[in-house]
Amino acid sequence: MKERILEEAERLFWKYGVRSVTMEDIARNLGISKKTIYQHFSDKEQILYQVIESKIGRNLSEMNCMVVEMANPVEELLSVLNMMQRNADHVSPNLLIDVKRYYPQAFTLFSKYKEDAIMRSILENIQKGISQGLYRDDISPAILARLRVEQIELAFDNEIFPTDQYSMHDIQYELIHHFVRGMLTEKGFTIYNQYVNQYNHEVKVYKKDGSDLAARLTE
Amino acid sequence: MKERILEEAERLFWKYGVRSVTMEDIARNLGISKKTIYQHFSDKEQILYQVIESKIGRNLSEMNCMVVEMANPVEELLSVLNMMQRNADHVSPNLLIDVKRYYPQAFTLFSKYKEDAIMRSILENIQKGISQGLYRDDISPAILARLRVEQIELAFDNEIFPTDQYSMHDIQYELIHHFVRGMLTEKGFTIYNQYVNQYNHEVKVYKKDGSDLAARLTE
Repeated sequence: MKERILEEAERLFWKYGVRSVTMEDIARNLGISKKTIYQHFSDKEQILYQVIESKIGRNLSEMNCMVVEMANPVEELLSVLNMMQRNADHVSPNLLIDVKRYYPQAFTLFSKYKEDAIMRSILENIQKGISQGLYRDDISPAILARLRVEQIELAFDNEIFPTDQYSMHDIQYELIHHFVRGMLTEKGFTIYNQYVNQYNHEVKVYKKDGSDLAARLTE
Repeated sequence: MKERILEEAERLFWKYGVRSVTMEDIARNLGISKKTIYQHFSDKEQILYQVIESKIGRNLSEMNCMVVEMANPVEELLSVLNMMQRNADHVSPNLLIDVKRYYPQAFTLFSKYKEDAIMRSILENIQKGISQGLYRDDISPAILARLRVEQIELAFDNEIFPTDQYSMHDIQYELIHHFVRGMLTEKGFTIYNQYVNQYNHEVKVYKKDGSDLAARLTE
């Protein structure tokens, strides 16, 4: 039951933010009573905390797998984009704002994850990229890793990128591709271009709705 | 007298932040009485407001001159760096935090400047760069201009880039060079490399303390 409550709470928080989702909503959606929820959790913040904890755990495993699977640092950074886009597509713009403003404990958990895991993995990526000659050696890994970490939060900031003007998908795409390109050497660009061409090709092949027909015909 | 008060207040605010500078400090430094200051300004926030107003005016003229003088968009963006580094070198890390937290009217002025003038000039720069074939045409000018505007504030954020770990000079340099490189086409890189080589050469020539002797000897 605890798992089901966490799953449903995650789905609702991601879709509507935290503030507007009540214990009542979670119970109703699961067809259980509020009392049952309170047998497992003392309040909404505790649910939120465990939702974020579990989400972070899954993200970490996914990130670790990708680092192992990917052939080089350029692909590694760009495939984080795919993971983020899958996650970001159905995230309410209120989620991060709600957590930041009203749920300090949960936000601390997120900040710690950002500081430790994300910061470290980006820093390692940059150092690896430099040592493999794919990223320029005149960049500062510490400053650029910090920039990238901040960009992740920036993209979710509704005041900076209003959701009625930009899609999360586009913002993430622009920011990460620009971030990677800003570090590349000539050798790095060769690998980057290969990856982008292959990726664009796959997107076209996988499109089922025929919307890319015109593009294919003019190729 | 009004001008002298504004000049001295600017110097003190830039050096120490706003909160820790008193009307008494400004008066003492000018060898005048506090009463004289109050003949021109109702309170410290009014002085701050006019200091920022005048600073913005000067920055705008400088930016406009640069756009006219510079041969191309790449040089334009990079020379804003020189302007920012000259300004940033003697700015207290408290300044922006103080203004943001405690002086809403003055902060509104700064935000408006950021939104209007800076945002517009970066957007124009990106569009010009694309049309001249120096920046890639697959980037989104709106998203990247917004990213750059946010980076300016990011660099001043003492919590993100602690001043005991990073110098403002290095942060600004890293961020703007990375920003420009992330947009460049091959043609753009040719111009960028010329500019950077020439700039590094000038830095060496102008260095008076001999610290670059080793570098020159091994060239």
